Amino acid sequence: MTSSWVPDIDPASDFSLANIPFGIISTAAEPEPHAAVAIGSFALDLKVFAANTDLDKIFPGISGLAEAFSQPTLNTFAEMGRAVHRQVRSALQDLLSTATIYPGVLRDNATLRSQTLLPLSTVTMHLPMAIGDYTDFYAGYHHAYAVGAMFRGPENALQPNYLHLPVGYHGRASSVVVSGTPIRRPVGQILPDPAAGGPKQPVTEPSRKLDIELELGCFVARGNKMGAPVPLDQAEEHIFGYVLLNDWSARDVQTWEYVPLGPFNGKNFATTISPWVVLADALEPFRARGIENKTELQGYLREAREESVFDIKLEVDLTTAEGDTTTIGRTSSKYLIWSFPQMIAHHTLGGCPLRPGDLLGSGTISGPGGVDERGSLLEMTENGKKQVLLAGMDARTFLKDGDTITLRGYCEEVGARVGFGQCRGRIYSAVQM
Amino acid sequence: MTSSWVPDIDPASDFSLANIPFGIISTAAEPEPHAAVAIGSFALDLKVFAANTDLDKIFPGISGLAEAFSQPTLNTFAEMGRAVHRQVRSALQDLLSTATIYPGVLRDNATLRSQTLLPLSTVTMHLPMAIGDYTDFYAGYHHAYAVGAMFRGPENALQPNYLHLPVGYHGRASSVVVSGTPIRRPVGQILPDPAAGGPKQPVTEPSRKLDIELELGCFVARGNKMGAPVPLDQAEEHIFGYVLLNDWSARDVQTWEYVPLGPFNGKNFATTISPWVVLADALEPFRARGIENKTELQGYLREAREESVFDIKLEVDLTTAEGDTTTIGRTSSKYLIWSFPQMIAHHTLGGCPLRPGDLLGSGTISGPGGVDERGSLLEMTENGKKQVLLAGMDARTFLKDGDTITLRGYCEEVGARVGFGQCRGRIYSAVQM
Repeated sequence: MTSSWVPDIDPASDFSLANIPFGIISTAAEPEPHAAVAIGSFALDLKVFAANTDLDKIFPGISGLAEAFSQPTLNTFAEMGRAVHRQVRSALQDLLSTATIYPGVLRDNATLRSQTLLPLSTVTMHLPMAIGDYTDFYAGYHHAYAVGAMFRGPENALQPNYLHLPVGYHGRASSVVVSGTPIRRPVGQILPDPAAGGPKQPVTEPSRKLDIELELGCFVARGNKMGAPVPLDQAEEHIFGYVLLNDWSARDVQTWEYVPLGPFNGKNFATTISPWVVLADALEPFRARGIENKTELQGYLREAREESVFDIKLEVDLTTAEGDTTTIGRTSSKYLIWSFPQMIAHHTLGGCPLRPGDLLGSGTISGPGGVDERGSLLEMTENGKKQVLLAGMDARTFLKDGDTITLRGYCEEVGARVGFGQCRGRIYSAVQM
Repeated sequence: MTSSWVPDIDPASDFSLANIPFGIISTAAEPEPHAAVAIGSFALDLKVFAANTDLDKIFPGISGLAEAFSQPTLNTFAEMGRAVHRQVRSALQDLLSTATIYPGVLRDNATLRSQTLLPLSTVTMHLPMAIGDYTDFYAGYHHAYAVGAMFRGPENALQPNYLHLPVGYHGRASSVVVSGTPIRRPVGQILPDPAAGGPKQPVTEPSRKLDIELELGCFVARGNKMGAPVPLDQAEEHIFGYVLLNDWSARDVQTWEYVPLGPFNGKNFATTISPWVVLADALEPFRARGIENKTELQGYLREAREESVFDIKLEVDLTTAEGDTTTIGRTSSKYLIWSFPQMIAHHTLGGCPLRPGDLLGSGTISGPGGVDERGSLLEMTENGKKQVLLAGMDARTFLKDGDTITLRGYCEEVGARVGFGQCRGRIYSAVQM
């Protein structure tokens, strides 16, 4: 990989020249949300760049880019399709590289550099896409197995359908928020002690089992028409890029409500995503095999490609109100038994239309090892029976008010790291009833 | 009720002067979708009306109406709130009544009448709202009981949570379509004979158990902020109006997929709604008691009002490809055990934000009587064990290609009927695999 002229890019930066993730920023100079890419510790303001550059020279043959970069979401850009994303990312990589073929455009243009290259600490990040529908899958095999074994025993850990299709449910789009948004502990209807055999009278109170779910999120680029399924071998063309996703979960609310129609208030109070969308092409060098599935799959789910997922290192940090941070989980996005193309092929099998900006979650990702490889406190603590030890002589079963959870994700390659930045949320106390 | 000067209003018309439902139309003269109301067999074009009328005189104190009526959805109008909807509906009732206080505005203005009063047969109806999220509840008591008894026996018909909270799930917003949109039979993954004990190898084929669900849909007017629940006694203020809703369901797909996260491809291929939104105020005279719930409810779900639902007569017609129509179900929207305000209070309890245009479904509504009071073929045929007899010497267990389902709904009052028009969809054959 060539080097960049952008100053002070840390070799461990998530936003190396090999990445170029897209996001939506606002700044003091341009307070309306608009598009940017991240490079090192800077955002490159694409709206201001587009307004001051001959785009036909840099991105020949692509029309509508200046308009797309002025939008408050990336939906218009996403809908332009993979070929456009590839060309735009590649041209931006050139412009930002030391040996750029157009040195006058940005590298040697001090005025435009000062207008467009903004320290990340000075920009405000927004939700990158207008999310029409949010679907959450359950493709983290070790998570599904561990949770199933916890509640039904290892013999019945996986439901009969689990290995045959990517199990998923419709989530709530209105409560997907960008990293940094405060998360209020939900009040919910809870059965105080589901194990006790007595009268089943619920109570309404703040959740006592507030949990995280470490997931990978995938944004849809082009959609499909209602009634027209997306075949597996075309599904990659419908993917815009990826974010980290924390599907906050109130386990006690979920336990009481979820039979027979699935999770509802236990999940719909908040889902946090990281602000920078890592384009699908940026992850191509980091392909890996997923969890092997020995089941004879239906034709529409048979992957021709063996390396159908990515090996993104994933980490979960818990920071207490006192400021002590502990990494409580480390895993990888390779521990999925279904790929996103398989999820898309299944989602659309019956004709369900996907739209640009739709969000797909992988489901919680846990590793095969011990409690430090788990993507939820439910698993780490065996539903509250054990404690996770923290720095500062502290410990948790589930989240306390004042706790901050930070997800991190990156593909390691020295000097060419492709990472996601942070997906962070702090817990505030519940509404007084 | 006073009478209207609009010609030829059938006493049995759903769109009497007592109704004034809102919808989105396009016409030859105004091909961009925009707002209208229905009166008798006419649409009153509100965009054209607004452009040619002194709105300050007719709707004093309301700003932004002309802009709202020019939008391709009713979201902007809905967000203006109940007081505005009430004032606008009331003023339109006056303008359309024989004794209008402003005869010159429309009644005696032949030019404007000819521009704005358009036969319904000449206008194209569109989806009335941009639907951010669609939530489907399960509040039809007799349906929940009948289906539960079918699969788990009468002793365990209702799940333990059913009488304590309005069970619901997140549906798919992208596949909500307006009446008349063709419905393609979904292909899905199906377990051929779930009852047989043999090896559980699914197949992928067109659904053989394509069903209907007769529901009432409710559109949200003003939303709530994330983290700020809507108290029950304020929930009515968040309701814009109501439509008929057919939540098409592929029972064989649903049976195999739905454990543990709920319905997915069995439902997300299509949901049809009627095009005219009957405003909440228009239904006020038709309040009724819902199903009595003897459970001691949590405080946030305790209704002060006894008549918390509406008595809307509901009917399901099946028309065969040969053109024979049979009314296969007759019931009422009063057979709900949870009111829409209760659903809203529960939905937002944990802080989930509702947005203008969000759609809430009641769940399938069945009556307490025989198979002719059921809102789904699943119930009418006991999951395909019996047949529903049709005109033309025909019969059904589930839907055949070429069948058309039409839902109708109305509150009966001679000469002042408040009805919904039709919610219709025809089944087309599945995609070839």
